[in-house]
Amino acid sequence: MEISVAVLGATGYAGSELIRLIEGHPYFTIGHLAAHSQAGKKVSEVLPGISGPTACMVLVTSDMPVPDDVQLVFTALPHGAAAQSVKMALDAGKKIVDLSADFRHRSATTYKTAYGLDHPYPELLEEAVFGLTEFSRADVVNTRLVANPGCYPTSTLLPLVPLLKADALNTDRIIVDSKSGVSGAGRSAKTDLLYCEMNEGVRAYGLPRHRHAWEMEGWARGFSGRAIRVQFVPHILPMTRGMLTTLHLAGQDPESWYAILDQAFRNEPFVRVLPEGALPSTKGVNGSNRCDIGLMVTGTDTAVVISCLDNLLKGAAGQAVQNANIMFGLDESSGLSTQAIWP
Amino acid sequence: MEISVAVLGATGYAGSELIRLIEGHPYFTIGHLAAHSQAGKKVSEVLPGISGPTACMVLVTSDMPVPDDVQLVFTALPHGAAAQSVKMALDAGKKIVDLSADFRHRSATTYKTAYGLDHPYPELLEEAVFGLTEFSRADVVNTRLVANPGCYPTSTLLPLVPLLKADALNTDRIIVDSKSGVSGAGRSAKTDLLYCEMNEGVRAYGLPRHRHAWEMEGWARGFSGRAIRVQFVPHILPMTRGMLTTLHLAGQDPESWYAILDQAFRNEPFVRVLPEGALPSTKGVNGSNRCDIGLMVTGTDTAVVISCLDNLLKGAAGQAVQNANIMFGLDESSGLSTQAIWP
Amino acid sequence: MEISVAVLGATGYAGSELIRLIEGHPYFTIGHLAAHSQAGKKVSEVLPGISGPTACMVLVTSDMPVPDDVQLVFTALPHGAAAQSVKMALDAGKKIVDLSADFRHRSATTYKTAYGLDHPYPELLEEAVFGLTEFSRADVVNTRLVANPGCYPTSTLLPLVPLLKADALNTDRIIVDSKSGVSGAGRSAKTDLLYCEMNEGVRAYGLPRHRHAWEMEGWARGFSGRAIRVQFVPHILPMTRGMLTTLHLAGQDPESWYAILDQAFRNEPFVRVLPEGALPSTKGVNGSNRCDIGLMVTGTDTAVVISCLDNLLKGAAGQAVQNANIMFGLDESSGLSTQAIWP
Amino acid sequence: MEISVAVLGATGYAGSELIRLIEGHPYFTIGHLAAHSQAGKKVSEVLPGISGPTACMVLVTSDMPVPDDVQLVFTALPHGAAAQSVKMALDAGKKIVDLSADFRHRSATTYKTAYGLDHPYPELLEEAVFGLTEFSRADVVNTRLVANPGCYPTSTLLPLVPLLKADALNTDRIIVDSKSGVSGAGRSAKTDLLYCEMNEGVRAYGLPRHRHAWEMEGWARGFSGRAIRVQFVPHILPMTRGMLTTLHLAGQDPESWYAILDQAFRNEPFVRVLPEGALPSTKGVNGSNRCDIGLMVTGTDTAVVISCLDNLLKGAAGQAVQNANIMFGLDESSGLSTQAIWP
Repeated sequence: MEISVAVLGATGYAGSELIRLIEGHPYFTIGHLAAHSQAGKKVSEVLPGISGPTACMVLVTSDMPVPDDVQLVFTALPHGAAAQSVKMALDAGKKIVDLSADFRHRSATTYKTAYGLDHPYPELLEEAVFGLTEFSRADVVNTRLVANPGCYPTSTLLPLVPLLKADALNTDRIIVDSKSGVSGAGRSAKTDLLYCEMNEGVRAYGLPRHRHAWEMEGWARGFSGRAIRVQFVPHILPMTRGMLTTLHLAGQDPESWYAILDQAFRNEPFVRVLPEGALPSTKGVNGSNRCDIGLMVTGTDTAVVISCLDNLLKGAAGQAVQNANIMFGLDESSGLSTQAIWP
Repeated sequence: MEISVAVLGATGYAGSELIRLIEGHPYFTIGHLAAHSQAGKKVSEVLPGISGPTACMVLVTSDMPVPDDVQLVFTALPHGAAAQSVKMALDAGKKIVDLSADFRHRSATTYKTAYGLDHPYPELLEEAVFGLTEFSRADVVNTRLVANPGCYPTSTLLPLVPLLKADALNTDRIIVDSKSGVSGAGRSAKTDLLYCEMNEGVRAYGLPRHRHAWEMEGWARGFSGRAIRVQFVPHILPMTRGMLTTLHLAGQDPESWYAILDQAFRNEPFVRVLPEGALPSTKGVNGSNRCDIGLMVTGTDTAVVISCLDNLLKGAAGQAVQNANIMFGLDESSGLSTQAIWP
Repeated sequence: MEISVAVLGATGYAGSELIRLIEGHPYFTIGHLAAHSQAGKKVSEVLPGISGPTACMVLVTSDMPVPDDVQLVFTALPHGAAAQSVKMALDAGKKIVDLSADFRHRSATTYKTAYGLDHPYPELLEEAVFGLTEFSRADVVNTRLVANPGCYPTSTLLPLVPLLKADALNTDRIIVDSKSGVSGAGRSAKTDLLYCEMNEGVRAYGLPRHRHAWEMEGWARGFSGRAIRVQFVPHILPMTRGMLTTLHLAGQDPESWYAILDQAFRNEPFVRVLPEGALPSTKGVNGSNRCDIGLMVTGTDTAVVISCLDNLLKGAAGQAVQNANIMFGLDESSGLSTQAIWP
Repeated sequence: MEISVAVLGATGYAGSELIRLIEGHPYFTIGHLAAHSQAGKKVSEVLPGISGPTACMVLVTSDMPVPDDVQLVFTALPHGAAAQSVKMALDAGKKIVDLSADFRHRSATTYKTAYGLDHPYPELLEEAVFGLTEFSRADVVNTRLVANPGCYPTSTLLPLVPLLKADALNTDRIIVDSKSGVSGAGRSAKTDLLYCEMNEGVRAYGLPRHRHAWEMEGWARGFSGRAIRVQFVPHILPMTRGMLTTLHLAGQDPESWYAILDQAFRNEPFVRVLPEGALPSTKGVNGSNRCDIGLMVTGTDTAVVISCLDNLLKGAAGQAVQNANIMFGLDESSGLSTQAIWP
């Protein structure tokens, strides 16, 4: 079996990882690559890491029709721009995993609050499945449109949802302090993302309320049924990849939380709960599709939960392939690694 | 006026910065350099950044008597080892700034709880002045022994104390999420501090309770009169220098906190409260003795306060020189820079 | 088909990559993991990037007999220590790829000159095949012992050998200026490999004559029949992976060299000669088993040739698997990626 | 004595260092700051490292007249743009240190060959002094216009000129392999200078002939009287600051070269020849105005000479201040540090 795949937005950092993952995938093959601002160039001129026949493909514009034989489309476009491409691909009968934010919210009102845009296709919001795979499998298998979660929500919700389901948490005191590598900010030529301005520097950004806060709160409720309020503070660090989220939590009987997390993820191929007392590092997950989680009880009613993932893999392209595998009835792990590139 | 100075523990990272600062100081000159494990070597063999006559000095052991003409001793030794050297120097009539933790606690019991050691000179604990300069000037000027604060407590207490004094905070819900460059872990040959294991990696450590938590709580009370409890989670990042502390705070009327901080530090040469809405970066302070502070209100009863400093300067050697300047009646800024080395 | 594999020296940086590659290999499976100083620990305690069943395996000492069902042994041990393990494995009927320097020299005299050691099994030197795969395939297929080349010789010889064979070069004026990531220095706890001492620093080392110079000269002659003399200056840079070698070459008609290189590597899966005028970067190869080569003519009788590879993959573990694939009659690319992890 | 100073091009990386150095200078004070693209903003909005009154100054456009009381102008503008500002400042009676390439060449023809521009004021080329301070002092003291050398030529010529003067070198076989931090590429928002594209990457650039090659050849002849030809290959490395130049040299009796270098620089405050056998690192000079030089004999007629400097200090702003000190009859070291910021 061979499934032809398109990537729209192929030359960004998530797009580039999608190409690499598809190249190593046992069933997916690349059938179409679009990148608006780079259209007309060969892949190798824009992506130095890609070699072989794919490197010789010519990039087309994002609004070019996707070939008929393509069955699966990954859209790695900016929010706002993705919706149109998704609609076109749906109308052409493709299955889609959208890595933008355009279909992550059930309500067009929330979308507008978070992104400041009127949604062009609100009727599709209900249909789209929010693909936090570990909690969405049953829906992903049947949908034609997956909204792939953001990296911050993925790293936050994976440990949070089981604790919420168990009613363990004080839902008013959830503090999410995240640390992200620079690739999360994308491949745009901005002065403050230059090597010299990021190296040896760490800073918070996106305050007082980053867009991903709505996504966290919305889907915490969506998966657990409980309303929460998060104080979310993202930071950008001098590293290319990796995301570490520190959850400062309050609630009842934190000594029991380890068992809750362990139970939730014991059989998951891409989530590892570390032994009690061990703390994860982004070094342990970079290059893999894995999320590592550690727990440390800090008081009679408080604990710290820390999760690590590769923001471009489990936080973007890796989870996208994980969802696509399910959509096509494949082994969920096809083409994905659980082992990190270390050191 | 020329004041001869000794540095004990001269070849660690704080020791090396002390040498550089003394070399550029208008009144201090280097009279004695000790470094136990490197004794017998020339400075230039161990510290590649030092040149000129000082580079040719021979390092002696830390237990060698300090020459008579030395008036000021900086001890940059491991906790436990520093106390003995401090005692010897005091007995020889020197003034001392101790960069270790040995004299930071008023109570030998707390010291033992935090460091697991019986204090050899508990009678000196009462005499030592905790040198968080902005809050300790009146005492520093008269003392012969300054206990220089830790880097984490400095970055935490500078913004916290004014808010506590103003009774603005819920003292049970103080969350301190700190991010430190690797130099804070010192110059010891440990596998987990190797370049390849730190680069592209971030991780928390020191949980469930890092030793600096006692120092924060003790001196929050010491300076403000209020008992607090902190949840302190330190992280180590892939950068050499710099510390960013994110304080997740709750309390009354956070809209009024900016004025409290601004009022507290308006005339301080080494603390800058950024304009409302601006967030600091470690890039803005590295190489300087400055601490930058930003505030962002996140709700009706919550706010985030972020402070940045160079862990080896305002967090160690810089503040030590700042204190020493006061002890000798000099301009507090002598030999210290308010401008960062940027980029 | 399933081939059980042992890794001796499993917890160094090359060893760790061998485990990852074997885990993703279609035919190899891990049957035995030894790491002398870490014996008794579980893999996950020492290698944070490895998860799943392999992470739970217990490391044994390097002198433990390799199980009977293991057919292939990778030895990633220090030079001097490897020879003994190789001999034991040969005597037990295994096939071996040795990543140390112990079997890279045909002559025990050269080995002693370069490494200062008497070779314990000189009779094996003649038998061992120097596995610079692109030039050694015919011999690798039939041998039971491959000496896997060093990273510097691999990056140097790949572009140099075709030019030597074509008699294009002035063999007295070959200057090799190499730049390596820190992982090439191994995982030992040395002060000068600490993050803080490598970050923002570049330096040459190993002068006046690094051990790999003998390997380059010996195999330049071995593969091309021409005696050369290299001036080799290695540098270590602040990055974990990657090696760039700049060859400053003199000779006749450098305008014709591009065709020589292109011809030599046109059909090679793991060597890419970039289009004329393009220069490679280590970013374009990291995470892959590929070597990228660029050429720039700089005068009527001079040119610069630049090669890039991942020192832990094409420079170590990747080429080792490439050789092992050939030894077992598999597709040479099995389990190896030509696509870089980028960015 | 107080000398008011202007910086044109104040918000680039060299400009920012000029501000810091002037702020710490005993006689210079900032009187005027221009930055074309940032005009109208406060310094602190563009340069996060600057604090105090200077941070509140408003940037003006580069073509604004410099105030009458300003005696000294530093022009840190792009080549081509600097010439006009230099002419205006000269006509207004100022002394100027120009950090651009516009006045580094004696001949307008060479300038056009290297930069592709017709020089607007060729009559000034003869008058300008090429300020490689250690070789130019006698001329710098009397001039009103110093052309500050490029970073690559500074790191190359410092060790090369004494060896050329001593007639030690084969002038046809001078190979210059340089490694530079990213700040040398300036502060422009280009994709290939983004953190994610530079981190973990090293690459050569500027081939076949970088503009600085003409500057090296021209001033090697200017200072030594000998014509040379260099093969110059610059590389960019993942670090913010620092430059290491590896000179692969051939000539007679290299064992005698150490004495030549030692003799040349023995009394220089900002050049250090390391002990025989020692090799410099950029870590040893970053943050200082020092150049460190090491020599290693590699054969009977070959040697490697390695020089290190901070590209923004001895390679730009530091040397500019060193020259300005001489122009105003001050101690050449005023406001400059010989000690590195380490680690």
